[in-house]
Amino acid sequence: MEIEIATIGGYEEVGRQMTAVRAGNDVVIFDMGLNLSKVLIHDNVETEKMHSLDLIDMGAIPDDRIMSEIEGDVQAIVPTHGHLDHIGAISKLAHRYNAPIVATPFTNALVKQQIEGEQKFGVENDLVEMEAGETMSIGDSGQVELEFVNVTHSIIDAINPVLHTPEGAIVYGLDKRMDHTPVIGDPIDMKRFREIGREGVLCYIEDCTNANKKGRNPSEATARRHLKDVMYSIEDYDGGIVATTFSSHIARVKSLVEFAKDIGRQPVLLGRSMEKYSGTAERLGFVDFPDDVGMFGHRKSVDRTFKRVMNEGKGDYLPIVTGHQGEPRAMLTRMARGETPYELDDGDKVIFSARVIPEPTNEGQRYQAEQLLGMQGARIYDDIHVSGHLNQEGHYAMLQALQPQHVIPAHQDMSGFSGYVNLAENQGYKVGRDLHVTRNGNLIQLVE
Amino acid sequence: MEIEIATIGGYEEVGRQMTAVRAGNDVVIFDMGLNLSKVLIHDNVETEKMHSLDLIDMGAIPDDRIMSEIEGDVQAIVPTHGHLDHIGAISKLAHRYNAPIVATPFTNALVKQQIEGEQKFGVENDLVEMEAGETMSIGDSGQVELEFVNVTHSIIDAINPVLHTPEGAIVYGLDKRMDHTPVIGDPIDMKRFREIGREGVLCYIEDCTNANKKGRNPSEATARRHLKDVMYSIEDYDGGIVATTFSSHIARVKSLVEFAKDIGRQPVLLGRSMEKYSGTAERLGFVDFPDDVGMFGHRKSVDRTFKRVMNEGKGDYLPIVTGHQGEPRAMLTRMARGETPYELDDGDKVIFSARVIPEPTNEGQRYQAEQLLGMQGARIYDDIHVSGHLNQEGHYAMLQALQPQHVIPAHQDMSGFSGYVNLAENQGYKVGRDLHVTRNGNLIQLVE
Amino acid sequence: MEIEIATIGGYEEVGRQMTAVRAGNDVVIFDMGLNLSKVLIHDNVETEKMHSLDLIDMGAIPDDRIMSEIEGDVQAIVPTHGHLDHIGAISKLAHRYNAPIVATPFTNALVKQQIEGEQKFGVENDLVEMEAGETMSIGDSGQVELEFVNVTHSIIDAINPVLHTPEGAIVYGLDKRMDHTPVIGDPIDMKRFREIGREGVLCYIEDCTNANKKGRNPSEATARRHLKDVMYSIEDYDGGIVATTFSSHIARVKSLVEFAKDIGRQPVLLGRSMEKYSGTAERLGFVDFPDDVGMFGHRKSVDRTFKRVMNEGKGDYLPIVTGHQGEPRAMLTRMARGETPYELDDGDKVIFSARVIPEPTNEGQRYQAEQLLGMQGARIYDDIHVSGHLNQEGHYAMLQALQPQHVIPAHQDMSGFSGYVNLAENQGYKVGRDLHVTRNGNLIQLVE
Amino acid sequence: MEIEIATIGGYEEVGRQMTAVRAGNDVVIFDMGLNLSKVLIHDNVETEKMHSLDLIDMGAIPDDRIMSEIEGDVQAIVPTHGHLDHIGAISKLAHRYNAPIVATPFTNALVKQQIEGEQKFGVENDLVEMEAGETMSIGDSGQVELEFVNVTHSIIDAINPVLHTPEGAIVYGLDKRMDHTPVIGDPIDMKRFREIGREGVLCYIEDCTNANKKGRNPSEATARRHLKDVMYSIEDYDGGIVATTFSSHIARVKSLVEFAKDIGRQPVLLGRSMEKYSGTAERLGFVDFPDDVGMFGHRKSVDRTFKRVMNEGKGDYLPIVTGHQGEPRAMLTRMARGETPYELDDGDKVIFSARVIPEPTNEGQRYQAEQLLGMQGARIYDDIHVSGHLNQEGHYAMLQALQPQHVIPAHQDMSGFSGYVNLAENQGYKVGRDLHVTRNGNLIQLVE
Repeated sequence: MEIEIATIGGYEEVGRQMTAVRAGNDVVIFDMGLNLSKVLIHDNVETEKMHSLDLIDMGAIPDDRIMSEIEGDVQAIVPTHGHLDHIGAISKLAHRYNAPIVATPFTNALVKQQIEGEQKFGVENDLVEMEAGETMSIGDSGQVELEFVNVTHSIIDAINPVLHTPEGAIVYGLDKRMDHTPVIGDPIDMKRFREIGREGVLCYIEDCTNANKKGRNPSEATARRHLKDVMYSIEDYDGGIVATTFSSHIARVKSLVEFAKDIGRQPVLLGRSMEKYSGTAERLGFVDFPDDVGMFGHRKSVDRTFKRVMNEGKGDYLPIVTGHQGEPRAMLTRMARGETPYELDDGDKVIFSARVIPEPTNEGQRYQAEQLLGMQGARIYDDIHVSGHLNQEGHYAMLQALQPQHVIPAHQDMSGFSGYVNLAENQGYKVGRDLHVTRNGNLIQLVE
Repeated sequence: MEIEIATIGGYEEVGRQMTAVRAGNDVVIFDMGLNLSKVLIHDNVETEKMHSLDLIDMGAIPDDRIMSEIEGDVQAIVPTHGHLDHIGAISKLAHRYNAPIVATPFTNALVKQQIEGEQKFGVENDLVEMEAGETMSIGDSGQVELEFVNVTHSIIDAINPVLHTPEGAIVYGLDKRMDHTPVIGDPIDMKRFREIGREGVLCYIEDCTNANKKGRNPSEATARRHLKDVMYSIEDYDGGIVATTFSSHIARVKSLVEFAKDIGRQPVLLGRSMEKYSGTAERLGFVDFPDDVGMFGHRKSVDRTFKRVMNEGKGDYLPIVTGHQGEPRAMLTRMARGETPYELDDGDKVIFSARVIPEPTNEGQRYQAEQLLGMQGARIYDDIHVSGHLNQEGHYAMLQALQPQHVIPAHQDMSGFSGYVNLAENQGYKVGRDLHVTRNGNLIQLVE
Repeated sequence: MEIEIATIGGYEEVGRQMTAVRAGNDVVIFDMGLNLSKVLIHDNVETEKMHSLDLIDMGAIPDDRIMSEIEGDVQAIVPTHGHLDHIGAISKLAHRYNAPIVATPFTNALVKQQIEGEQKFGVENDLVEMEAGETMSIGDSGQVELEFVNVTHSIIDAINPVLHTPEGAIVYGLDKRMDHTPVIGDPIDMKRFREIGREGVLCYIEDCTNANKKGRNPSEATARRHLKDVMYSIEDYDGGIVATTFSSHIARVKSLVEFAKDIGRQPVLLGRSMEKYSGTAERLGFVDFPDDVGMFGHRKSVDRTFKRVMNEGKGDYLPIVTGHQGEPRAMLTRMARGETPYELDDGDKVIFSARVIPEPTNEGQRYQAEQLLGMQGARIYDDIHVSGHLNQEGHYAMLQALQPQHVIPAHQDMSGFSGYVNLAENQGYKVGRDLHVTRNGNLIQLVE
Repeated sequence: MEIEIATIGGYEEVGRQMTAVRAGNDVVIFDMGLNLSKVLIHDNVETEKMHSLDLIDMGAIPDDRIMSEIEGDVQAIVPTHGHLDHIGAISKLAHRYNAPIVATPFTNALVKQQIEGEQKFGVENDLVEMEAGETMSIGDSGQVELEFVNVTHSIIDAINPVLHTPEGAIVYGLDKRMDHTPVIGDPIDMKRFREIGREGVLCYIEDCTNANKKGRNPSEATARRHLKDVMYSIEDYDGGIVATTFSSHIARVKSLVEFAKDIGRQPVLLGRSMEKYSGTAERLGFVDFPDDVGMFGHRKSVDRTFKRVMNEGKGDYLPIVTGHQGEPRAMLTRMARGETPYELDDGDKVIFSARVIPEPTNEGQRYQAEQLLGMQGARIYDDIHVSGHLNQEGHYAMLQALQPQHVIPAHQDMSGFSGYVNLAENQGYKVGRDLHVTRNGNLIQLVE
């Protein structure tokens, strides 16, 4: 059976992930993501109203025009998890394909919200739920099967899809960390990966985000321990404490909520994304916040909440807000600029349970937010975080488990691939033979 | 009562700490340390045989000649903990003073070993033990008292000495981290610091090592959780695993020993310093290693042990060795150069439970060690560590607790003080009034 | 005669410089500057309309309330050169003092424009011109004299004022580079500094901007040679070339204009500040641009010029524009965003004859500007620049020349002073004795 | 005619360059270099006595075993210039090939010295001289021709070899900077490159050392101007001044010699490599030092010279010595350690006309050298240098000139290639089609 891989997007950047795998006549698309930074650099761009070709020209969504060169029918669009760089282009591109979107429940819910927000295109693809550990037949050949293997990432309900073909499995490895003690959900299913490895892997597509970083990226349990240490250390403080983290990072939000309770504060989730992700997670049963944990997204209800907090005493609350990167319109930035009813006082604590994304625009915005917070006397606790992506020892372990015939590094540019290439070559792979250093828009024929 | 402080060493560097406090006619000296980097930059220097004046000229030990300007009798020499930058000059300088050395049991034992290794001077000062929480009368005035407050640092049995005088307490704050969940020993005694603060603090001398770092330096419990995560993640590996950390960091060595057992390996401590510190800690009852944990310092016994490990199978052992900074003659460096019977194979793991000390010489040596290990196929896990020093939020908390009249930043150069100065000024102190930015060899008269 | 120095502003930052020297009953103020970054971090702040107390609270202008503690009459306000961090607070503070503003002609012209733009206060101090090499009697004692010594900086007509007193000279050393081959004006007058050194210097206040940088900061002639190399290398390009630099850096603008002519292009200066500084310099005779060099500041005339350039051919012009730091509203940023009639094509060249000011906000903005330029195909040449401030060997040479009794580092925070303190201590000065590490708002009594 | 390119060494590192081009039956080898860092990391390795296979295993010299897969006869071995990473493996590998070594006169002389130092192998290949601008027929087909095009680099007499074939030219672009005003020799021959471009270029192999650096790497004339500025600025100093630079950088040595004379000092070249490179350059007529400029390599004659300098007065001399990277056994390091008769005094100047090679081992050694120099009171001037390699705008200009059908980035690892890949893709090339991102040991068939 012919096997062909189209590396459509996310092979020259982090963002706008999209990969298609053809097995015989059947094609499966993994991820359709958005590169948000390519949008934000322009003033006043509203993606909801934009045409896909303009977004392609901006480098914001995958240039899927190469799909016309692939002979075969798209049978499924498979987003691996709910981050925007994996689902953010579905509302712009999915309607071109006559195929269902297959995803885990949490991812599916986020895709649905994404589609509902779209104002330019009508996306009517079916949304099919499939859980980690389940499989689905692909096409009519009876020979191709899609499996979801449970993985751990900085968002819940993430999977690595595996396409089983007569030529061996194609494992799509985006995005994951190797976490044996996640705070929510099951550990990464290394047992299944090892089985698949023994069954035979034709090709492994790997998430190289941290491929230039040594060692092992620690478990969420380590970040949780760190966060606990910080929050317990300020237990006696009776003024304001505010926390911020990635809204989609439900496990972290859960830890924040729990430790807030532990130190005698009422957690309250504020900001549009906070409400969206945590609300969805709770509705689907991934997390069970105490009944009194409020979530507010609209500015009016947020401001009303802040007023209540100010009236009843900041010392009784822990607002968990958006704005960990100093984004200009996020909640924490508004607080830093004095634009909300919440008033910071000298000695108040702001906890950044996040790392600054290392890009100059970001760093500038985050710096400004911290400066403004500092001018009001706030004390900053930052970097209480672990990344959601494998470091080098995770890559090494995956190669040991899967023993793939071919490897394709993804989710980075060439400089980001370099650490992975060195590692893979040390394990016997060779660029130009079975280690494929590729770019957006390429076709790799693995079996002719 | 006249109160005067001589900032003798460690006010322009990290290393060769020494501070004298005069209260009326009674003088107490805190720390007598060595700046090892000033020794190592020269080839073939043997400090054991050198005269103190030569070492002073090299910048290696404190220039204590200013002590002749202080009227009063030295009543005690008080090393705060057993690191070389706090005790390493005792063998060169203490014999000039007719005063006992007063320290906690573990520190005292290390001072004793230091003195025994000295070949130039005969040091015959009394060694007096005093535990955290205890006090001692100083001099004959009946008005001055020395107290040890328990603190947490990267070595066990560390204290902050407090000199109580009629003018208020002088709190000598070197070195500490604010750890509420240390792995060995009691948490930092913040309750006592707060009491002392209420009683009245004349002056606080602060450890500014990390004063330019934001946030809170996490607990040893966080490093332990991180280490556990790493070690459990390689539980199934059946080849060689080697670990290295600071020899004097008994809590970390204890964690390594315990997790080695957890993953089915026999820990063995190798290298002169490993044997020295862990042996001393065990003898004094600070740690209770399983009976079968060997410790070997001499090259012959180390090599014999390595041979046994190689014969019985690397997979059954965890050598815990010296060399975390790539020091040329340390055990791990010898292993990396293939100079020991222990042979590294492709895929073997080396765990650095330490951070690279950010100095170019160090960084070069550590880089070389990692390169050489990598050439033999070793996989590196590094940075599994937390610092032993307060970050900015710890400094903030100490000022809140002690409310000192005067503050003296120490244990850094001026650039290192800058973060502390900003922080202290934000809390109302002022350089030139009650915030004393000083240098080696200065006298500060607090009460005339 | 009593000599006292008030370090009012610019001793904890770069920006809002202000220092007062009292000699007997006569006080001279050096510089009254603005810290622009403290203004820009807030949205929509218009300094022209703000009260000085609010600007002091923001940290934007010097807190001169300490002047009330100084007994004596302010006889002169002496801005050393025309940069905003030295003259930008004159319009907010000078009217409080019954004293003339004494400055060189170019500085004076800029001060005048500054005052004319002020909308809150009426500033009516006399503006007195004095050239480098000239002196002026201060007060009625007949014993105090003000002298201007010619120095070289990144703006023309800069001087170091020297206050001659019976107790020795006070040399105010802000801001300068030691340039023996400047492109405009005379070399730094080291001969006069050496004479003053022999006559006796009581105190030297030094510009420490680059005090942590090794070696010698090269001459403007080196930057000019570098710029020539770059511009000649693209001589054959027939598309668009655009250059940007500090508007106030007349020598650099002059080099740009000359090399533009050399490579057959018509230079044209665009942007409000470009017109202001170059126009002033030309009017005062510091530079003599060819008659056909246009300067346009208002948006309409700029856009008209751009249209003409586009019509006649980009290959015939070199627009020299504002925006070297990627400032959001500057000309180059507008060009990058496609907001001007000038259209960039693939292969067009943009020359940044400036270094990125190392502050995260700046770095973010500059990065964005370069990204946007790159999206249009522009090729970037950056870092064609030398700093206007002394590096360590310049500081060393000044101490050798002046042999001052006292030294006061300025124009930095404490971290920035650290390199200078090390250097000065190596030359025999001592902190707390004759090397004064100080902060904003301190009084230093040199002679009682 | 079949055209095939073997990327043998220097495609995963800087060092051990080697590339073979087959045109029909004729093969030409470009460069045979040594990766010195792979040797120095081991203690006590003497490459002169080592076998090539051991050096291949160490990664020190190219693994040329792939040459057995290439059908055709090696007709010439062509080192492009005299740096070790281009000629250092000739003595280990050239004897395997029955072909002459063809190089420019200066390169040839250095190759000859290299071969004479070899102790393991007898290298008896003919040494053929060919100058820039000349051509040579290759093989018997009458269709293949070798041409040398003059380029500018940090060593004199550097060329880019061009292999003219019926399928178009193969241009081997290692190593060069685009210098229109070099201090010695002719400017880069861009005219010829443009002609070759018009004739048709099949493939361009490019030096990517600086491919991640923006803008234009300036001319040696800029470094010379900078050096002049520094040296003239210390003209009046009457104590010791010492300079160091790359021994093989004859243009820089020439500038040092000339400026030494200008400021009234007698230059003297000291250290084995100084004598070797400058002596060779002078003998071949590339430079004409004044008759009284001594060059001494052997320790005895160096020490004798230092004694004379000390006797006659340091103020009359400028020793130009080896040791710019702080290499442990180089002359400047010996001076820093007080191991030579030259005594440094407080205020003496040391000029590093070199940049620190950014590798941790190097940085550590250089740091130590500076520390030791500083302990003796020396003042450091560093970074007076420009790189010998193209930055991005040079790469852009080469692509404009040559318009090659295929491009192969070289002289870096994959991370180093990334900037070039982005640049080339912006110019229309595509990875996997005509932009070949490759590794050591690959064969690229361009024409079948």
